[in-house]
Amino acid sequence: MMLRLQEESRVSWVEEAIKNLDDILLDHAHCEKKAASMALNLMFRYPHHPQLMKSLSELAREELRHFEQVLEVMKKRGIDFCRQKPSTYAGRLVSIVRKDEPERMLDLMLCAAMIEARSCERMKILSERLEDPSLARFYRGLLACEARHHQVYLDMLETIFAREVIHERLRDISKHESLVLQTPDDFPRLHS
Amino acid sequence: MMLRLQEESRVSWVEEAIKNLDDILLDHAHCEKKAASMALNLMFRYPHHPQLMKSLSELAREELRHFEQVLEVMKKRGIDFCRQKPSTYAGRLVSIVRKDEPERMLDLMLCAAMIEARSCERMKILSERLEDPSLARFYRGLLACEARHHQVYLDMLETIFAREVIHERLRDISKHESLVLQTPDDFPRLHS
Repeated sequence: MMLRLQEESRVSWVEEAIKNLDDILLDHAHCEKKAASMALNLMFRYPHHPQLMKSLSELAREELRHFEQVLEVMKKRGIDFCRQKPSTYAGRLVSIVRKDEPERMLDLMLCAAMIEARSCERMKILSERLEDPSLARFYRGLLACEARHHQVYLDMLETIFAREVIHERLRDISKHESLVLQTPDDFPRLHS
Repeated sequence: MMLRLQEESRVSWVEEAIKNLDDILLDHAHCEKKAASMALNLMFRYPHHPQLMKSLSELAREELRHFEQVLEVMKKRGIDFCRQKPSTYAGRLVSIVRKDEPERMLDLMLCAAMIEARSCERMKILSERLEDPSLARFYRGLLACEARHHQVYLDMLETIFAREVIHERLRDISKHESLVLQTPDDFPRLHS
């Protein structure tokens, strides 16, 4: 199983996704924006960990670059960017985050790492199932970045927490992530 | 007067800045981070103006790139990134922002444009007065970006508001900006 995910996505997800590609692309754009915001928020929350700043800033820049790339894809397909009801996935995932520091930081960054991992898995599935070769190629290119981002979060955490502490908690959060996906949204999203 | 600023910076600002260059560089890093956050917040607040998304995302990326460059400069000088008491400038500037839309949007983006303008003016002064040639060159490179960002905010607004509405309000906000600087902070910052 890739990137510490406990469960593979259900087959029905990709079928729904491919039938509702416009919704998925719009959601994907919003997800890249939210991922950038997550990295930037961590920069504001943890300035007393200066060793994280460069990596977080680079992450945020790369997510924004992907956001712009998804906008380009949407434009070519005549899809307008607009507000969209978000998936409940991320909100339910971060409900596991503990309130006190430094546990809060560990949990937030592990949730971010798991979101990257799930994105990577879903983009891989899309890249294998999409009929449009240029869109399949687009997702094949992105999924390598998502896998790298997953690892960047773990590497940043290793500058602060002991490796065994990180990986024990990662197992809990990864189990929780699979549970979250067992009651998916009834509307098509990248993480539904 | 450059970029619609009503008043030039007082001479004592640059003298204080050059005497406290470490504080100024740290503040500069925080300012770039805040500028990126401002652009990203606008993306979250105004998704129903899709024509702004690409420009805002590019702005945020460029501010983050500058953040990383300032971190590099600091590292070479042995200055650690850390929390720092911020200038009161931006908070006092945005006190002019009206609460209701679309006035709120106009005012927020004009405040952002004025912050870019003041940054540009201050970086120009620094570039002319700094003795270290590599740091002077660094600021000379950045000030052109700040001037461009000022114009990007105005260009984005012109996709939504009439030009005369923008420029009338810009004059008000620019006057307000000069007043804000007339009661500067008593600690050295880029916008004190």
